[in-house]
Amino acid sequence: MAEGAKDIEALIDLMAKLPGLGPRSARRAVLHLIKKRGVLLTPLAEAMARVGANARECLNCGNIGTGDVCDICTSNKRATGQVCVVEDVADLWAMERAAVFGGRYHVLGGTLSALDGVGPDDLRLPKLKDRIASEHVTEVILALGATIDGQTTAHYIADALDGVTVTSLAQGVPVGGELDYLDDGTITAALNARKSL
Amino acid sequence: MAEGAKDIEALIDLMAKLPGLGPRSARRAVLHLIKKRGVLLTPLAEAMARVGANARECLNCGNIGTGDVCDICTSNKRATGQVCVVEDVADLWAMERAAVFGGRYHVLGGTLSALDGVGPDDLRLPKLKDRIASEHVTEVILALGATIDGQTTAHYIADALDGVTVTSLAQGVPVGGELDYLDDGTITAALNARKSL
Repeated sequence: MAEGAKDIEALIDLMAKLPGLGPRSARRAVLHLIKKRGVLLTPLAEAMARVGANARECLNCGNIGTGDVCDICTSNKRATGQVCVVEDVADLWAMERAAVFGGRYHVLGGTLSALDGVGPDDLRLPKLKDRIASEHVTEVILALGATIDGQTTAHYIADALDGVTVTSLAQGVPVGGELDYLDDGTITAALNARKSL
Repeated sequence: MAEGAKDIEALIDLMAKLPGLGPRSARRAVLHLIKKRGVLLTPLAEAMARVGANARECLNCGNIGTGDVCDICTSNKRATGQVCVVEDVADLWAMERAAVFGGRYHVLGGTLSALDGVGPDDLRLPKLKDRIASEHVTEVILALGATIDGQTTAHYIADALDGVTVTSLAQGVPVGGELDYLDDGTITAALNARKSL
């Protein structure tokens, strides 16, 4: 690479640190950015600077927003009785895209993991207990991944909470899913949870 | 997504326009950026702003640098007699990484393509002819892709240039390549260009 182009090299190195991009795709992305300077590079630099200056974790639920408390926690359109517990903000966004849940969220910030040394104190669990009391929560809906760690965390939370209904997302055949392509575990879960029509 | 987080949404939309990133990986990347604000998001925004302000195409060869003429064209360590013709800057960077070529480059900005309506006037071909005269070029090395369009472009350039030796990168078995995994075309090219030991 040309000697004077240190800035470009630095940009490639930083881009390569993004999840899903390696050195080669970072180079491609940077060339694309330079070609589309007006419509992409400059707006992107500005958007990043704005998000860097404004984005912060909600002190209440752990969602990412632009104030101390996020829009969902401050909205008076969201029911306060139900709290949906998710692993991270990406899962919260997925729930919001489905637009089916009208309550509030609580972002754990991960799952319990003996392998990675993540214990209950590393997650946002004490705050969840506080909220159950202060926000008069009647139901905690666990929307954790159907993984070993996710299910371990779900059972831990269910044991740790008192005086509140704890539910979990149903497991079964995904909408549009074909049985032929499903794993044994999913079919077993779907059969065990079968419904009468 | 939360209503007030328009900035985050805008950033995700822009990131999703990068090659290699879709909506889902853009969301992942943005969450990663926000988590690593100090070490990644802020430096990246600054690096992009710097590149946006400084990067420009070399008026001579089409490489990307920070001045009107790039470092390679102005370097007195680079031989002027040989010009290596590449499709785009990514290919120039690949040649530079191999660190085997000591001459200068000429970036075409694409290949001839009847399908995409790219004719000779859409590439940086007139400038190449100018340079052959003004820089006393004796050899033009075509380092174009071994694709239909690349090879068509190579033949067109070889026909269009007079009074200069035109060569092309050799085709054959890649270093470390196993014959079992090579396509028929590569094996044919390698056999036809076999060398005596």
